Amino acid sequence: MDGRECERMLSVALEEARAGRAEGGVPIGAALFGPGGELWGRGHNRRVQDGDPSLHAETAAFRAAGRRRSYRDTVMVTTLAPCWYCSGLIRQFGIGTVVVGESATFQGGIAWLRRNGIKVVDMKSAECRELLESFIKARPEVWNEDIGVE
Amino acid sequence: MDGRECERMLSVALEEARAGRAEGGVPIGAALFGPGGELWGRGHNRRVQDGDPSLHAETAAFRAAGRRRSYRDTVMVTTLAPCWYCSGLIRQFGIGTVVVGESATFQGGIAWLRRNGIKVVDMKSAECRELLESFIKARPEVWNEDIGVE
Repeated sequence: MDGRECERMLSVALEEARAGRAEGGVPIGAALFGPGGELWGRGHNRRVQDGDPSLHAETAAFRAAGRRRSYRDTVMVTTLAPCWYCSGLIRQFGIGTVVVGESATFQGGIAWLRRNGIKVVDMKSAECRELLESFIKARPEVWNEDIGVE
Repeated sequence: MDGRECERMLSVALEEARAGRAEGGVPIGAALFGPGGELWGRGHNRRVQDGDPSLHAETAAFRAAGRRRSYRDTVMVTTLAPCWYCSGLIRQFGIGTVVVGESATFQGGIAWLRRNGIKVVDMKSAECRELLESFIKARPEVWNEDIGVE
């Protein structure tokens, strides 16, 4: 998987993040791609929109992909490094690769994922970072709620 | 939290697991209790019923509890030791205690949770174990799908 392919996948997650921002929600997006690079599911954080704390971007994309017998050679792309909840999802279901837009704002479980054999590609995207950082500045209490920080 | 209180909480998760079995689904139930022992949310695995792979029992109970600012001193009770996905949820949101019906069928992330300061109480419930083991015997392919095993 080359850099251009990672960019293509990240662009879908970024569209989702922007949609979340437009709805007034936490601007984090994600998508799950199958072994051939085909889109299986995409989504964004829905805490604010649906009052649903269980739908982080990654779980929304996973949900949208529906029931699957295997996640071998799939790629989860997300605008932000996955938290423990979403890292646990990736490990449990054997998703092989995670492409993160950035991990500067929040590192989540990416070191743990790498230690457990999952490939993590960090795109160090300025756009992903600016999108989230401007939200955190405007709505710090919602961001803290979203990651379980009191 | 004494044994009687753990039994009371587990009985709610068991009701959920039995409801899941009656619907033809994976018979695992869970509930989230607030700091005073009050019920915040309850639910069961909905993979079969809703075609939704993101709703394990624990995530269903967490979702049902709605948005919360803090999970301090809350208790997640579940009929089965939580998988990595649900263990990650528990760690990320700072849920302090996990009461598991059993961990003989599946151990999930309970050793990792304990290492990270979360209290885990194992009730070693024969009923929880029989409920799940009979399902695994009847529908091994659904069980494997539910934990990401090919």
